[in-house]
Order: sequence, then structure tokens, then C-alpha cells
Amino acid sequence: MRKNDIENKCKKAKIASEFLATASTQQKNDALEEIANQIDLNREKILKENEKDLINGQKKGLSKAFLERLALSNSKIDSIIEGIKQIISLEDPIGEIIDLTTRPNGLLIKKVRVPLGTIAIIYESRPNVTVDAATLCLKSGNAAVLKGGSDALNSNKILVSIIRNALSKKDIPKDCVSLIETTDRNAVKELLTKRQYIDCVIPRGGAGLIKMVVENSLIPSIETGVGNCHAFVEKTADLKMAEEIVFNAKVQRPSVCNAIETLLVDEEISKVFLPKMAERFQKANVEIRGCSKTKKILPNIKLAKESDWYEEYLDLIIAVKIVKGVEDAIKHIQKYGSHHSETIITKNEEAAKKFLDSIDSAALYVNASTRFTDGFEFGLGAEIGISTQKIHARGPMGLKEITSYKYKIIGNGQIRT
Amino acid sequence: MRKNDIENKCKKAKIASEFLATASTQQKNDALEEIANQIDLNREKILKENEKDLINGQKKGLSKAFLERLALSNSKIDSIIEGIKQIISLEDPIGEIIDLTTRPNGLLIKKVRVPLGTIAIIYESRPNVTVDAATLCLKSGNAAVLKGGSDALNSNKILVSIIRNALSKKDIPKDCVSLIETTDRNAVKELLTKRQYIDCVIPRGGAGLIKMVVENSLIPSIETGVGNCHAFVEKTADLKMAEEIVFNAKVQRPSVCNAIETLLVDEEISKVFLPKMAERFQKANVEIRGCSKTKKILPNIKLAKESDWYEEYLDLIIAVKIVKGVEDAIKHIQKYGSHHSETIITKNEEAAKKFLDSIDSAALYVNASTRFTDGFEFGLGAEIGISTQKIHARGPMGLKEITSYKYKIIGNGQIRT
Repeated sequence: MRKNDIENKCKKAKIASEFLATASTQQKNDALEEIANQIDLNREKILKENEKDLINGQKKGLSKAFLERLALSNSKIDSIIEGIKQIISLEDPIGEIIDLTTRPNGLLIKKVRVPLGTIAIIYESRPNVTVDAATLCLKSGNAAVLKGGSDALNSNKILVSIIRNALSKKDIPKDCVSLIETTDRNAVKELLTKRQYIDCVIPRGGAGLIKMVVENSLIPSIETGVGNCHAFVEKTADLKMAEEIVFNAKVQRPSVCNAIETLLVDEEISKVFLPKMAERFQKANVEIRGCSKTKKILPNIKLAKESDWYEEYLDLIIAVKIVKGVEDAIKHIQKYGSHHSETIITKNEEAAKKFLDSIDSAALYVNASTRFTDGFEFGLGAEIGISTQKIHARGPMGLKEITSYKYKIIGNGQIRT
Repeated sequence: MRKNDIENKCKKAKIASEFLATASTQQKNDALEEIANQIDLNREKILKENEKDLINGQKKGLSKAFLERLALSNSKIDSIIEGIKQIISLEDPIGEIIDLTTRPNGLLIKKVRVPLGTIAIIYESRPNVTVDAATLCLKSGNAAVLKGGSDALNSNKILVSIIRNALSKKDIPKDCVSLIETTDRNAVKELLTKRQYIDCVIPRGGAGLIKMVVENSLIPSIETGVGNCHAFVEKTADLKMAEEIVFNAKVQRPSVCNAIETLLVDEEISKVFLPKMAERFQKANVEIRGCSKTKKILPNIKLAKESDWYEEYLDLIIAVKIVKGVEDAIKHIQKYGSHHSETIITKNEEAAKKFLDSIDSAALYVNASTRFTDGFEFGLGAEIGISTQKIHARGPMGLKEITSYKYKIIGNGQIRT
């Protein structure tokens, strides 16, 4: 792919976005319906292209977990189609009047929700994200420029070509969805300079990808996803409840960003709580890496290193530290956390309040698992990612979180004096 | 100033911001009151330091306009104090419950407004901005790291020292406001890498400053201020009203971002409208640079170059172009505009609707002057700048626009299944 191709795709996306910004909800939903139909009708083609990616991936020696995320199947295609139907059922955020005021001089000021315009999404080799990102953008009136992981290129090409054909059939410019079709690593850096055409870039993936985007982008970006989440069992906690929550937050799905990585335990209850918790973890093959105090209670565990407190394992490993009260827990989280999700298990309202007020994270829980930090669980209906930064959007980002607003002001000759 | 000094100031600001995030409205208002008092009591000292800057500036041969912005006086100090009183009277945005839902599983999810944390503000040699930015940040619970123009360094140093003393007196950490005290141009670039301590950077100033920040910042930034604004006189316009609005938008205060730079005139009424408008402009010493069609009607004007359509003159100069209808006007604005403020003067509702819907600018007016794009005029009470980007905030930014939110979630043992 030549340099100019990226420039051209971004430029075309910008032009297409002007149409999409004022498309009706009906027109957008019709197009989404058509995309779902066309994906359904083209299962064979999609699976064939995906097979190519899988064979290349096996040859390259990609890990089993990687290949699992890359692989499509009829049931995965069912989920993709189900996801589109769900997006169709969501309310269209565009056109909402967020605020309406009449000023003393008679000016009527309407604050109206509008799309961001064009969104670039940079993600890993997961073909389901291609459809997910494209359709969320479409429903919210945004043109999407997609750059998926190189190992999914064949899968992404067929999916985007199906989506573009469906758009054309429903009289929506096909450039509302486009794919940067290259395996050249410099393509992403090139894309990140197209500020005149792209309004926002969202990296979806691991810490390395996000860091690269933040460091190279001239386009405003929204950081998503790195989750070094914590659970703190305070001394007044219902210890049975604590055990259930901590176990759920670590074990139910360890590979996701809202799973916990570190368990903080109040010193006063550590000797009672930790042996039971450890037994439960050991049965589920969870490796424990503890501080020196933890190791005194659980002599068979590994000793945690300083680097463990920063780690997002995304695996059946947990770091455990004994702390003195809620202040100590807060200090640890503020120092090592990634501002994603943290939970306190406690019966003490004051400790809960301090935890909720003082920690600078997107989602703070009292007596519940961190695994609920998710667009569906929050009632947003869908999710394009979980923001861990503070500007624009924080926590799960649904359709509204990928919009902006403009002011429409109606006068009858007002001038400023 | 050594490299480490910037790092240390940012680090200290971050720590101080944790206190400020949960400070009460009363405590913040008391501190603001004390700042106003201390500025009032130290007028002499302030004017003496400002005098040093003015003398240095004169020696350096800075322009009259530049020196005017740099100069303080007793009446300018009155305005600064008045500005603080106004900020005291504004509602505290922090702690507002933006949204509250109970999920089917019983989880109570509160979306609560919180400060952004630490904000770096980079601005030109205008000492009044120092106080304005610091006090807006303080009221909204944000620590401020200020980097003002080097030519105002003595003025800024005394003002920030007064502010910090006032904070200390009211038991607020003085590091909630700090100044990068250097004239080294690399200091700004250094500051823009401090992503671990600074949550958001706001450049306030000309196009060059904003471009430099956007290109060098690792911290999320909010672009403010560049205004290549347009007025379009549609063929059905009340031409007397059009003349008043266009004149006001250009002439009332040409040096500000919400003044117009280009006038677009519908061909059908151009021969009637332009001679009257030109006469009015000529009386006010406004230089007209017109397209070739305009020059046929007004033979004595300069011919506009392609570059004129991109220009933010901030002066008594206006570019004039004859267009064919609203579509043509929209195309011009979309191509050359800076997404700030545009107005259409028309009696045709359809043309008005098309203008409001299709143009991708922060503020779109029908039959009113663009000069109203301003925090006070919009009823926000104060303004830290006018955003011309689409993520986070758009148009005038008041206190709410420099906040974020977090989710506080209360459960009773919920786990995810």
C-alpha cells in the first residue's frame, strides 16, 4: 500500500461522514440489517478467508490463545449477527437536544448531539472487532477507518467488502467504512498523522498498542482497556462475600481488562481470610505471588517482586499484599493502578466512602465484582471499549460516548454591543 | 530551570490535586476570596513587577498590541478581582450526580462529576490569564500547572506567589497552582511529556502555539481558539439586518476569535447588497479583499488570493466571495473554515436548516452575530477557552467542561456469571 492510499482513504471517509452525519435512523438501521443479512449469506466465503489467516498464523507459530481470537466459526458468526441486531435495537443518539436555553437577548441556544465525524480504530487480529466497530460507528453516524491486526487481513478484507456492498445497496456511501489493507507496520504511524480527516482515534488492544498510539498520534485519541484492577478486603468485610467476589473477579474470565490482578487484604483479618482464599485459588490453579507478610501466612507461594504490583497478568495469576486499613489500600492503588476498576469489600460505610471518593479510577465498587465494568452490564447496550483516561469519556463507552455536540443558535438580528 | 524542576512541579501538582478533588465548595470559595483579597492588597508589588516586563518588552521592540495585552493597571486589576468574584458565585460542578441507575441485578450505579485532576495551561504573555486560569481550575477542583509567555514572567511570578500564599492560608496545598518559571522554549516540550502527572493540556493562544502543542503533546489536549469564522448572506435575507450583523461580527472587536474573517454573499443579491456593505466597511477602515466577481461590483478593492480564504486576520480586513446559494456557501466553509462559528442571514427556513445541519462547526447561527460564541454570552458564567475540536468539549468551555466523571457502584455481593 502506497502512502497516498492511506491519505485517500481518510479523505474519502471524511467526505462520506458528511452524508452519514445527517442520515436518518431508518436509513442507518436498514443498512445495518443489510450488513447482517449479507454476513449471513456469505458465511462460506468469510470462513474460507479466515481459514487462510489461520493457516498463515499456524505457520508463523502464533500462540493458541492468539489463534483462538483470530478464528471465526459458524457460531462466532451467529454472535456477530446477534451483535448487529442489538445495535439496531439501540436508540439513535444523534439529534438529541442535550440542552436548550433562551438568553435574555432572545437568542435561542440549542446544544445538539452530533457524530464525532470520522473515527480511526486500531485493533488486534480479531475479525469480530471489525464488524463490531464498523456497525457501532455506523449507528452513531461516524465514518470508520479500520486498521486491524495484520494476521487477520484476509478475514478483515472480506468482512469490510461485504459491509461496503451492503452500504451501497442502501444508498449510503461505501466509504463510511474502510479498511487500511496493509501489513506494513508504518501504516499505523502514517494513519495517526491524518488529523485533517480523522476526528478521533481509538486503540483497542494491549498496553503496547495503546502506548504506540498515544506516542505517535496527532489525532485526539481515547485510551482504552489496560486494566490493573484491585480488590481490597477491609477488616469489617463479610469474609464469605469477599471470597466469592475476589474469586469471581480473578477467575471467571481472567483474560479481560476488568478482571483483578492484585488482592489487598487488611492486616487484621489476613490470617483468617488468606488461608481460605488461597485454598479456593489453588483448586482453580491460580498462582499466588504475595508480599513477605502474605508469605508468612501462606509459606508455599511465590514472593511478589516490585514489578508484580504493576502487572496486568490477564491470566490465572494474582498478586497479594497485606495492607493496614483503607488509607494504605488507597495509596497502593493510586501508585500502581491503571485507573480502571477497583472494589472494596466492607461493612464500614466510612471506609467505603473514602475508597469511592479518593481513588482516581473509572469504576469503583463496594461489595461487588469488578467484572461488571462493561457496556452491556452498565446498560449502555453495547461498547466500543473502556476508557481509562479522563477527557471525553471514562469507563465503558457506548454509542453516546462516540458523539460530540454542536450549538445551533437562532436569532432575529442580535448583534453584540 | 533544570529538567527535574518541571518533573517535580508536575508531580507535586498531581499529589496536591488529590486533596483538591475532595475539597468542599466552601473551602474552595474561601480560598478564592483570599486570592482576591491578596491581589487587592498587593497591587503595588504586582504593578512594579509588571513594569519590569513592560520595560524589557519595550527594549525588545515588542508591538504596541503585544504590550497592551501584557500591561496591567489598577483598572485591569479591578477586572481580575471582579472575575474571581464571579467564579465564586458560580455553582460548583464537582459531586453532581449526572446519572443514577439500578440494574436488574441490584447494582446501584452512580455517575458522578469529578475534576479532570491536573491541567496544564500554556498561554501567551497576558498576566490576567494567569489568574483567570488558576481560579477556574481551583473552583472546578483541578490543580493548575501554568506556563505563560516568557515576556510576562515577572508579572506571572508575583501573581502565582500571591495565589500560592492565599491557598496556604486557607489550608489548601499551595501546589494546586504552580508556574513553570523559565524562558527556555524547550520547557514547554518537556512539560508536554508529563503524561503520568498531567491529565489534560489546554493551549490558549494563536495558531502557532496550538499547532506546537498538538504536535508535541503526549498528554490529551483541547484545541482552543483559532477562528476563521464566516457570515453568509442568503438571497432572501433582510438586507438591513444582514448589514448590521456582518458589520458587528467584523468590526465590533476584530482581534478576537469569534469575529468573522470571510463574508459570503448569494449571487442574486450581491449587486444590491455589496455596494452598501462596502460603503459601511470603508467608513470603518475595513480593507476588503474580494473574489473576481466581487471586484466587478466593487472595482476599487483588492483581489483576494487563495490564501485569503484560510486567513484568520484578527484585524480590520475581510475577504468577500460571491457564491451560488446555500450549498455553495456550505462547501466553502467546510473547505476553508476552522470549525468555530458561522452565521447565515436568511428568511428561508430550509436554507437555515441546511446550514445548521451540514456545517461541522462548534456554533452555527441564524440571523445573529458570531460574536456571541463566548462562555458568558452562552450563560456558562466564565470561560477557559473555546474548543474547536470535537472530543471532550466543543465551543465555549466553562467549569463543567474541565471536569470528568467516575462511576461509584454499590452492591451487596454481586458477582458475574
